[in-house]
Amino acid sequence: MTEISTLGEFGLIDRLTDDLPRANNTTKYAVGDDAAVLGYGERDVLVTTDLLLEGVHFDLTYVPLKHLGYKAAVVNISDICAMGGTPRQLTVSLGISQRFTVEHIDELYAGIRLACERYGTDIVGGDTTASRQGLVISITCIGDVEKDKAILRSGARVNDLICVSGNLGAAYMGLQLLEREKAVSKGMKDFQPDFAGKEYIIERQLKPEPRVDIVKELREAGIQPTSMMDVSDGLSSELLHICRQSKVGCRIYEERIPIEYQTAAMAEELNMNLVTAALNGGEDYELLFTVPLHDKDRVAALRDVHVIGYICDADKGCAMITRDGESEIPLKAQGFNPLK
Amino acid sequence: MTEISTLGEFGLIDRLTDDLPRANNTTKYAVGDDAAVLGYGERDVLVTTDLLLEGVHFDLTYVPLKHLGYKAAVVNISDICAMGGTPRQLTVSLGISQRFTVEHIDELYAGIRLACERYGTDIVGGDTTASRQGLVISITCIGDVEKDKAILRSGARVNDLICVSGNLGAAYMGLQLLEREKAVSKGMKDFQPDFAGKEYIIERQLKPEPRVDIVKELREAGIQPTSMMDVSDGLSSELLHICRQSKVGCRIYEERIPIEYQTAAMAEELNMNLVTAALNGGEDYELLFTVPLHDKDRVAALRDVHVIGYICDADKGCAMITRDGESEIPLKAQGFNPLK
Repeated sequence: MTEISTLGEFGLIDRLTDDLPRANNTTKYAVGDDAAVLGYGERDVLVTTDLLLEGVHFDLTYVPLKHLGYKAAVVNISDICAMGGTPRQLTVSLGISQRFTVEHIDELYAGIRLACERYGTDIVGGDTTASRQGLVISITCIGDVEKDKAILRSGARVNDLICVSGNLGAAYMGLQLLEREKAVSKGMKDFQPDFAGKEYIIERQLKPEPRVDIVKELREAGIQPTSMMDVSDGLSSELLHICRQSKVGCRIYEERIPIEYQTAAMAEELNMNLVTAALNGGEDYELLFTVPLHDKDRVAALRDVHVIGYICDADKGCAMITRDGESEIPLKAQGFNPLK
Repeated sequence: MTEISTLGEFGLIDRLTDDLPRANNTTKYAVGDDAAVLGYGERDVLVTTDLLLEGVHFDLTYVPLKHLGYKAAVVNISDICAMGGTPRQLTVSLGISQRFTVEHIDELYAGIRLACERYGTDIVGGDTTASRQGLVISITCIGDVEKDKAILRSGARVNDLICVSGNLGAAYMGLQLLEREKAVSKGMKDFQPDFAGKEYIIERQLKPEPRVDIVKELREAGIQPTSMMDVSDGLSSELLHICRQSKVGCRIYEERIPIEYQTAAMAEELNMNLVTAALNGGEDYELLFTVPLHDKDRVAALRDVHVIGYICDADKGCAMITRDGESEIPLKAQGFNPLK
């Protein structure tokens, strides 16, 4: 008997989905990317799904239900963006334990509806049931993309530029702050944490936004990324996915990793390594993508996109060049592992 | 604060999904049927999803993991059949608690793969995570159907014939048998239940099959049902759905409800009312549908399809005419309510 933790999430998925048969010619791309690609019509259809469990993915002691609903929708919408697609429909399945009232579920659903309205996504179905084991949220998002233009993780080529939108590590530092306040407040009644000056990192943790704006910008600028994914498990982990699936290596520059002031201040206050937080923090839902070198000027003109490195040969491995330019630190997948 | 049990599953869904906005013209039919209908191409795309939770939907003391996986796939495939569609793709999300080993999950997944292979459905994605308590299975199935030919629940018309495939109540009587053996075996080591002569009802409970064959038969016979759904919550409950959504009433004949010998024998052994079991048992995954009266002869020629009644005006309500033809018993939705 083998413990699941010995394989980890990706090891288990690889084992289960190894050598899957394909019976339908509408199945264009299956397991292994942010979403599956289905060839149903003039545009390709994208399908992605996420399972969120209380106590594993969220802690209701500090996450308001409306924010939770919003975020649950956003993480799925973000996966459609990560394929270069447009989100269109969503299904919502809920497992509800006895301590929740109708009003609680109204709140949760209001958050889901808000995200769907903001990002033009229709709720088209789902399932609702009792749960013995806390709140269960399973969301599937369906989107579309121009035929044969879905951006996979496997298309990065040597000399491509590595780009990331927004900034990294903020959601992780927001989580650290929330966890600290939870520990401090233990046993105290009506504890009111003071988040002044830290609103940004709290918001990045509790209410992330999918980068549909970046997908639109890329499309309007005529840039077709060679690979793309969203940063949900941390920059290091995602870069390793792209490099493994594209059979390439990479170099990123420590000094180019975009970090907000509040993120840095929080890391200092908590005496944590800032770069580690930015590399491995996760839940940023920014877009990580590669573009051909000849798109350099066009990418530079994009708002809120940063070139952080380049793709190299696979035999050179994946590493970060330190701020002083003196040494290279190998990238490791230390991101969130829900099966550990 | 309102307890969720006061609304029940359908009441809660109605409340949450009331007045949903629609932003995309690809959304043809959303919440309220066995699957959503999306207009992505030359054929319409169908999407359905089910959430199965340990302790609510299945009991691993008598359900083998491989059977559970098979059934979890089948209930979703059946929903695509219930729209007159063909299943094409499946996503599988699993929440796995610590007591499960890799080999356990292999078994579960083997069952899912077997059902997918048998019914020509490709596994294209999913999510895998830890669970704090018990096994969580969330499956989404995608299928397709000829454009504008998805069979909704809302199309039944007065004088249509009511048809059902196969037989009813067997899965429910199988469940009663398994529950009885579980109670008997409590505290006994290596208890071996004797299921001789009861294999059929056990199999109907543990390993149901979706009626893709009936969908195919209907298509080949040129019969387009006016309404259809699958019998997952019990014949009564499903008929009431069709009648409410079609704004009609119905009459079914007690003597015409198809029941297998083993189902009847088990009901007698357990001193249970057989017709109640057939009306309210659920989990049969047979197809319930209505056809225009002029298709009477063509339907009669179909293998394993039974005409059990007819559609009437809404103001006549929904009732079963008893075997003696003397009285009418109003149909009630006493099927499985996972939120009670």
